[in-house]
Amino acid sequence: MNTCAFCRIADHTEPANLVLDTEDALAFLDIHPLFKGHVLVIPREHHVTLPDLPPAQVGPFFAAVQRVSAALPEALGAHGTFVAMNNVVSQSVAHLHSHVIPRRRKDGLRGFFWPRQRYDEGEAADYAARIRRALG
Amino acid sequence: MNTCAFCRIADHTEPANLVLDTEDALAFLDIHPLFKGHVLVIPREHHVTLPDLPPAQVGPFFAAVQRVSAALPEALGAHGTFVAMNNVVSQSVAHLHSHVIPRRRKDGLRGFFWPRQRYDEGEAADYAARIRRALG
Repeated sequence: MNTCAFCRIADHTEPANLVLDTEDALAFLDIHPLFKGHVLVIPREHHVTLPDLPPAQVGPFFAAVQRVSAALPEALGAHGTFVAMNNVVSQSVAHLHSHVIPRRRKDGLRGFFWPRQRYDEGEAADYAARIRRALG
Repeated sequence: MNTCAFCRIADHTEPANLVLDTEDALAFLDIHPLFKGHVLVIPREHHVTLPDLPPAQVGPFFAAVQRVSAALPEALGAHGTFVAMNNVVSQSVAHLHSHVIPRRRKDGLRGFFWPRQRYDEGEAADYAARIRRALG
C-alpha cells in the first residue's frame, strides 16, 4: 500500500469526497475544514513541496487550483476564496496540496491573521538584495 | 497616473524593493511583512483575482511564485514557505498577488490558524456534489 495518503486518494484506494479528477490533478474536501467546502488540490504525481513540482506540471496544477477557486463562489454562494500552501513548515501531509477555502464577507476572519512586523531603516533593501541573489 | 498601486510598481512609477522583474511577473517585498522577507508576486498585467487570470498566464505567473518559494530558504535561512492568495475577501489590493512568506520551525505560528469545523452526517458528500456541479 502506498504510504502517502494523498497518493492513495489519487489511485482511489483511500476514500475522499472528490470534486475534480483529471490527468494532472485531483481535488477533494479537506476532512477538517476551516469553512465547509474547503478543498485540497493536489498534483497526481507525488511531489512534496511547490519548489519540487517539475516545471511542466506547474501550469496544469495551478489551472486546477484556478478552476476550483472559480467554482466555489458559484457552488456555495461564497464571495471569494483563500488559496494557500504550506511548504515544509506547517505542512501536514508531505504531498503538495493547495487549500482552496470559500470566504464570505464578515465570516469572522480578518484580513490577515498575524501581527505584522516593521523593517528597520535600510533593512528592507538588504532583505531584497539577499533574495535577488538567491534568485540568480 | 495608473490608479492601481501594483501596476505603478510594474511600470516603475512607484518605488518597491523588487526581487524579480520578468516579462510576465514581478516580485517585491511586502511593506508590512508577516515575517521579514515576505514577498508579493504579481502578474505584470492587471488582473484582479486568480479566476480572472487568463489561462495562458497561469503557468508563467506560478512559475514566478515557485521561483520565489524556492529562493527564500537559501536567501534567508528559512525552513519553508507559506504561499497564499486572497481573492476578493480580505484582498487589500485589487491586483492579483501571491504572498510568499518565509517560515521557520517554531516561528510562533501554528499549523493552521483558525478553528476547524466539522461536517454533519452526509453533509460533506452534499458539499462535494455542489462543487462538482459548479466545476461542470
